[in-house]
Amino acid sequence: MTHVTFLSDYGLDDAFVGTCHAVIARIAPAAKVIDLTHGVPRHDVRRGALVLRGALPYLPEEGVVLAVVDPEVGAERRAVAVRTGSGRLLVGPDNGLLQPAADRDGGPVEAVEIGRSAFRLEPVSATFHGRDVFAPVAAHLAAGAALADAGEPLDVGELTGLALSRPRVEGDCLVAHVLTLDAFGNAQLDATHHDLAGSSLRLGRPVAIEVGGTRRAGHFARTFADVPSGEAILYEDADRALALAVNRGSAHRSFGLEPGTEVRLGPP
Amino acid sequence: MTHVTFLSDYGLDDAFVGTCHAVIARIAPAAKVIDLTHGVPRHDVRRGALVLRGALPYLPEEGVVLAVVDPEVGAERRAVAVRTGSGRLLVGPDNGLLQPAADRDGGPVEAVEIGRSAFRLEPVSATFHGRDVFAPVAAHLAAGAALADAGEPLDVGELTGLALSRPRVEGDCLVAHVLTLDAFGNAQLDATHHDLAGSSLRLGRPVAIEVGGTRRAGHFARTFADVPSGEAILYEDADRALALAVNRGSAHRSFGLEPGTEVRLGPP
Amino acid sequence: MTHVTFLSDYGLDDAFVGTCHAVIARIAPAAKVIDLTHGVPRHDVRRGALVLRGALPYLPEEGVVLAVVDPEVGAERRAVAVRTGSGRLLVGPDNGLLQPAADRDGGPVEAVEIGRSAFRLEPVSATFHGRDVFAPVAAHLAAGAALADAGEPLDVGELTGLALSRPRVEGDCLVAHVLTLDAFGNAQLDATHHDLAGSSLRLGRPVAIEVGGTRRAGHFARTFADVPSGEAILYEDADRALALAVNRGSAHRSFGLEPGTEVRLGPP
Repeated sequence: MTHVTFLSDYGLDDAFVGTCHAVIARIAPAAKVIDLTHGVPRHDVRRGALVLRGALPYLPEEGVVLAVVDPEVGAERRAVAVRTGSGRLLVGPDNGLLQPAADRDGGPVEAVEIGRSAFRLEPVSATFHGRDVFAPVAAHLAAGAALADAGEPLDVGELTGLALSRPRVEGDCLVAHVLTLDAFGNAQLDATHHDLAGSSLRLGRPVAIEVGGTRRAGHFARTFADVPSGEAILYEDADRALALAVNRGSAHRSFGLEPGTEVRLGPP
Repeated sequence: MTHVTFLSDYGLDDAFVGTCHAVIARIAPAAKVIDLTHGVPRHDVRRGALVLRGALPYLPEEGVVLAVVDPEVGAERRAVAVRTGSGRLLVGPDNGLLQPAADRDGGPVEAVEIGRSAFRLEPVSATFHGRDVFAPVAAHLAAGAALADAGEPLDVGELTGLALSRPRVEGDCLVAHVLTLDAFGNAQLDATHHDLAGSSLRLGRPVAIEVGGTRRAGHFARTFADVPSGEAILYEDADRALALAVNRGSAHRSFGLEPGTEVRLGPP
Repeated sequence: MTHVTFLSDYGLDDAFVGTCHAVIARIAPAAKVIDLTHGVPRHDVRRGALVLRGALPYLPEEGVVLAVVDPEVGAERRAVAVRTGSGRLLVGPDNGLLQPAADRDGGPVEAVEIGRSAFRLEPVSATFHGRDVFAPVAAHLAAGAALADAGEPLDVGELTGLALSRPRVEGDCLVAHVLTLDAFGNAQLDATHHDLAGSSLRLGRPVAIEVGGTRRAGHFARTFADVPSGEAILYEDADRALALAVNRGSAHRSFGLEPGTEVRLGPP
């Protein structure tokens, strides 16, 4: 059995996702579709890319990933299918959405441009390439088609990347940035515990959290249960990234965090 | 493998949809359920019918469609199962929900009334016929039961239809109406490009959009990417209907559109 | 084919649910996952428990139930897998979430503590036990592993229960309490029609509904269609519990109901 893991910003209120499922079922009836999420905020390529990268290590080892967050649908952006070093196939728009996942999966090793793929459903609509281009290409690949038959060869060096911020150590502080916010208002930072090497932060200790010139006290702890309700916690999240949350609250609202916000973490 | 394509207004916050899945899994373990959408606005039979009609050409060719938008559950409305000219089986309340899809699928050719079907789960609750009537009938049909065994014969001429508006040409204008609005606020009209024959509208040209006596400028374009952010676009949507949107905005809010609103499209 | 029926409070906006699906697909590729709902209000163990109990009679007879509403994740609460008298296997946190379903299913007959299960994904994160503990244990059980191999033996008498209110008859009134509210604002009470024996309430008759000292008129009816739009209805819901609703409205808002609210039902 082959799996198609499907992520998009289509939401579930309309039939976009269901119609893609139907298209896949017609082309690859034996494939099993896993809906990773369709709740990526509309047009938020960056969040889609990070969610996909975070889930990647848990996906079936063989199989196809179908990812559609596509603000430029109908414009000149490329549509691609990419094989990674680990052997997974990623299908989606070439706007940076696939790159962090591909990099985590051994890097892109083969790519084709699928905008005029023979696997498309004709006539291709101007606005719903999920149904007419991406889902049918993913389904044919899941059904065993060769990547080379899905489109025109493309040099993997030409694939579009996604610029992500990097943290830095300043004195005994770690200066990180918000990568992404989840639906609970928890903020994933662009740092991991490896980035703490030069800082004075220690697990189990208080931490000062400075955002936009305002300092607040928090705890560098293992899990929410280690922190009183309503208080800020710095922790390693399920993607093994450092993250900022408020126990039973929202770091997004409490700290006014947005993607890109600088967060200065230091001793109290 | 047989597919059951499932649409409803149950939403996903409660276990209504999941319980129907479980009922189907017990009766027809080999059937595969495709959730078309469960985000039809509550009791909005018209929107459910149009979403179903739009997705129909993409559904598996053989198989069962289970559709439940049922404001009169527990009252005297009929429950039906219908075979179309193309061979699909549609199961749901007989309130107009199934008719546009049936018409697009070769028309209804055989029907049974399933309110007292032998396939029901007993005791039948007064409020959850999705679980107790529609899902079990759909599952038995997916498992190979004959339509005639699902209920009492019903003349297809007695099935309930759905009255839909029609556009008209007035001078060099096309006078259309909003059929339905999607979750992004895009408005599907009751017209297709065939209805433009007598008008002066041309793809790639500006268009004047008059709603409720107010005229606004827009573009008759192929896709959102052809139009500046925040501007109105008239386009052919993924169902091949003319539609009105605001690029990265909401035509629903910007124009105050509701289902049935008259939209006058003419030269600038 | 084995089924894993999955309920949680993860919502669908992030990839939590999809990642658990992926984990299950890797361990038990032949298992079929039924999403009961992931819309349980965050951390609402009581509502999760009641939704699970209500759906239980409709679930596949053999199979695994995976339930995750886990406000104390990372703290000392136990994680368990339980076999019921009917032979189903329930996996989740031991915080009362599983108990009403287990009791309805023949009671717990065998239990293991899975916090250090050999089936966990290592390293176990501090915040996402759905992915790292519960889903992999459920998947191994679905794939045929013995319950005894999933963890350390646990006396079923030590499992955590959920305290639920009980109704009482006072004179010719039934004094009940709100158990839970669904997404439409309908309130399930802690009473069934058996509890009406001593009261003067009769189906088809008016009923006085007193909440917080305020009495309002309603109808004790079979279904919403029996009651004018906007009026209150007392009815037997799809779980065969007495419930309070407002036809095409919200009993939650109209009556100011919350879980635990006392509702006094009597003659007009």
